[in-house]
Amino acid sequence: MIQLRIPGPTPCPDDVLKAVGRQMINHRGKEFGEILGHVTMRLKEMFQTQNDVFVLTASGTGAMEAAVVNMLSPGDKALAVSVGAFGDRFGDIAKAYGADVTRLNFEWGHAADPDAVRKALQADAGIKAVLLTHNETSTGVTNDLAALTGVAREFDKLILVDAISSLGSINLPVDAWGCDFVATGSQKGWMTPPGLAMVSVSPKGWQAYEKAKMPRYYFDVGKAKKYLEKNQTPWTPAVSIVFGLAVGLDNLAREGLPNLVARHKKVAQRAREHVKALGLKLFPAAESYASNTVTAIHGPEGVDVKKLLQILREEHKVVLAGGQGKLDGKIFRIGHLGWVSEKDMDEVADALKAALPKVGFKGK
Amino acid sequence: MIQLRIPGPTPCPDDVLKAVGRQMINHRGKEFGEILGHVTMRLKEMFQTQNDVFVLTASGTGAMEAAVVNMLSPGDKALAVSVGAFGDRFGDIAKAYGADVTRLNFEWGHAADPDAVRKALQADAGIKAVLLTHNETSTGVTNDLAALTGVAREFDKLILVDAISSLGSINLPVDAWGCDFVATGSQKGWMTPPGLAMVSVSPKGWQAYEKAKMPRYYFDVGKAKKYLEKNQTPWTPAVSIVFGLAVGLDNLAREGLPNLVARHKKVAQRAREHVKALGLKLFPAAESYASNTVTAIHGPEGVDVKKLLQILREEHKVVLAGGQGKLDGKIFRIGHLGWVSEKDMDEVADALKAALPKVGFKGK
Repeated sequence: MIQLRIPGPTPCPDDVLKAVGRQMINHRGKEFGEILGHVTMRLKEMFQTQNDVFVLTASGTGAMEAAVVNMLSPGDKALAVSVGAFGDRFGDIAKAYGADVTRLNFEWGHAADPDAVRKALQADAGIKAVLLTHNETSTGVTNDLAALTGVAREFDKLILVDAISSLGSINLPVDAWGCDFVATGSQKGWMTPPGLAMVSVSPKGWQAYEKAKMPRYYFDVGKAKKYLEKNQTPWTPAVSIVFGLAVGLDNLAREGLPNLVARHKKVAQRAREHVKALGLKLFPAAESYASNTVTAIHGPEGVDVKKLLQILREEHKVVLAGGQGKLDGKIFRIGHLGWVSEKDMDEVADALKAALPKVGFKGK
Repeated sequence: MIQLRIPGPTPCPDDVLKAVGRQMINHRGKEFGEILGHVTMRLKEMFQTQNDVFVLTASGTGAMEAAVVNMLSPGDKALAVSVGAFGDRFGDIAKAYGADVTRLNFEWGHAADPDAVRKALQADAGIKAVLLTHNETSTGVTNDLAALTGVAREFDKLILVDAISSLGSINLPVDAWGCDFVATGSQKGWMTPPGLAMVSVSPKGWQAYEKAKMPRYYFDVGKAKKYLEKNQTPWTPAVSIVFGLAVGLDNLAREGLPNLVARHKKVAQRAREHVKALGLKLFPAAESYASNTVTAIHGPEGVDVKKLLQILREEHKVVLAGGQGKLDGKIFRIGHLGWVSEKDMDEVADALKAALPKVGFKGK
């Protein structure tokens, strides 16, 4: 059995895979409508929201683009708060579509500082929207989204959140924290293959939508809203992945959101304990903001990280992720979200314990 | 056994569904890279092209948006040649992104007239691109794409083609006909579930890409090209659907493109013969351009088309499609692309024969 422990795609339970392999049905028929309606209802529970929720056929990056093009106009000022590769990407997308992006970058491995966000918003009253990452997959850091959204709300800003690798696994009460546009992806905590992005739009988000002038068509949530009234999507959806998501969401609902959040916390703690016991060093500068869905680890001094990952993969059937962008070859990451237990982390640790000496790591 | 005969999603063979239901693997690992490389090679064969071919996680409409945003700049003049709902959509997308769109609309049920396209191009030398539909799914009409692209090439225009419901089923030699950007979708002739769009870009298309200023990120084919060099996609792809497409394409390759085209022709002829034998009337004004992938049929005088479709579905397990847009309630459509045989059309005809009297149709 392969241990696929990257931060998405994540392994899927058998019942999800069985659903994914179902024969096609009419995506504009009654049966599919019932499934999409059920999925939407379940997603609202997991998003803890009364807002509209839509399923888009795209990966998470498509959902980030949806956030930008539905909420903003060219020239709108946006504060892009970044603690890693995905935070940078959110700002890049806004810039590509003509937003006037102010970057507030924090050192990779650190969390965003709410006070610095406050200062940035005080410094420019013209800022319309704040782009936030809940969980930064590239560095294994979870931002204090309650505090960050609190600051953004002090200034009545539009709040766009990349919650791709957090929602369903880390507590994110969308309404309580006033998030106007939230994006997640099926291949993360949802125990489902990639192919779908799920987004929510608040009433304030809809007001922004009415004024937003960025070009949009495929990702237009107004079209999604119109079609969802008849439990359809405007364009042919990834039917197989919707089948899978319906089953994945039922699994999550049976476990219950508080239990899900608690399980991810426990599994992540176990992962971090193992990392430290092995003499390895967490990449996040403080354990208080180390992520409960992905653990990023410094490549030990003198160790060829790519070689380590290869040995883990080929000799121990444990698939971990490397670093992204400027962290390529410098860190490695254990994904632990969705269908995952503490025992899985024990198995990953056993493999690491066996593999590390082979790349010359002596331990502490 | 349900006869799902809508123009996508189309039924998938067991081997494709089994592949779709496979457990997840690392989308940046060696195994997935080999599959994506294989898929790309097979797609080039089916596209009859030496051009770059990319797999995007989106439905067909996303691929049409990719054509527009990668090839054009705001203000560029585009001639949108439309014979139905999807031709209109292509023009709508270009307009949404700021192209200066000239519409050349033909009556629904008719094919585009190459001479009219020539006149439109003569009338405005500033036109940069021609947007063409190969097979118009909404009306069951196949345009003479050889002639239309020939005219566009006389004027050295950029040629963007919606081949979503034709490629792999109806002959479309992308290079021989000089198509610069071609889009298709996995749920059409490819025997695969929806979720992927496949596009090709010609060398002339890349020249246009370099100058194109429309905002783009998720659908940026330049990013796709960079990642395909290492057999990856820039964003997490719909892994399950890629698994399925690999098997679907192997099935198609075993049959061979000429045989595929011949089979679709034979199946469509059988469908049209049945329609006429039942006393029904084809929607296309001339049989010479009636589509080989979808047959559109006039709702007979006085017949409630939606009721007819309901009876077919509920009493005969035959799922056909209604009309789209202004044809809603006026026509119905039989999809016959991908995994389909003449026998399937016989079964559809048997069901129609039994159902039509129940909605008061006496036949001829």
